[in-house]
Amino acid sequence: MARTEYYNDPAAPKPNSIVVAVTVFVTDSKGRVLLIRRTDNGLWAIPGGAQDFGEYIAETAVRETKEESGVDIRVAGVVGIYTDPKHVMSYSDGEVRQQFSICFLGECLGGNPTPSSESSEVRWVSRAELDQFSIHPSMRLRIEHGYEQRPKPYIG
Amino acid sequence: MARTEYYNDPAAPKPNSIVVAVTVFVTDSKGRVLLIRRTDNGLWAIPGGAQDFGEYIAETAVRETKEESGVDIRVAGVVGIYTDPKHVMSYSDGEVRQQFSICFLGECLGGNPTPSSESSEVRWVSRAELDQFSIHPSMRLRIEHGYEQRPKPYIG
Repeated sequence: MARTEYYNDPAAPKPNSIVVAVTVFVTDSKGRVLLIRRTDNGLWAIPGGAQDFGEYIAETAVRETKEESGVDIRVAGVVGIYTDPKHVMSYSDGEVRQQFSICFLGECLGGNPTPSSESSEVRWVSRAELDQFSIHPSMRLRIEHGYEQRPKPYIG
Repeated sequence: MARTEYYNDPAAPKPNSIVVAVTVFVTDSKGRVLLIRRTDNGLWAIPGGAQDFGEYIAETAVRETKEESGVDIRVAGVVGIYTDPKHVMSYSDGEVRQQFSICFLGECLGGNPTPSSESSEVRWVSRAELDQFSIHPSMRLRIEHGYEQRPKPYIG
């Protein structure tokens, strides 16, 4: 379905939907963050996706990371809760979805980086290399918060 | 609208909806927790409610606490994220809503306990008195987590 993303855009339509989604910040033993290249917009991102019915939210984080990256994780904490109402996604069926996303800290348990229908590339990327990758600012924010190891989750 | 609550009930219908909601754990200077008596089921609970479109989730916590209790708060942290798929609410229009609730730590800024259309009574209740109040087990869990002052949010 065609979609348009708005971020701090005064011309954005008013939201009429909230869908719970997650992202996962997970690093390897060298401190490199797990990134996928999204097939829907070509940008690099940390893995994530929407919660399914019948699922605990931590199960969503484990499932989406496995599906999009091939990497097995367990949820080890909360990086932040991201609910900026000025970040909306408009779909061709009339849905205007307001961002609602929890970023979890994932602990890597194993598995090999593996692309999927939703991810054309999967890579462990060092913090110093991040500027070489096209990453949406909202996603970059989560990555920075993940590296900061805040004592309390970010709430925004 | 008529509704039926299911909690760990194998006969519960399958969820077809997730609505983001919050609760707020806030204590006064004596360590008493803010409780309201809900008009919809007569039980005592910490304040809370569903997120509105266009709202940051922390704004939901502030607004709902004010509406239901008359107390002004600011959000100071995350007590836990509660997403038990075996806790569902079935409505007469066919919606079967799976629990999705974030419990925030609220810092009391002022205001006087004031009932509302959603709350027939509002009280500051000491931890020792809690057993004298009819409180749903899922709500009691949040209150216990709030008092525990965990270093990390509960994820369940």
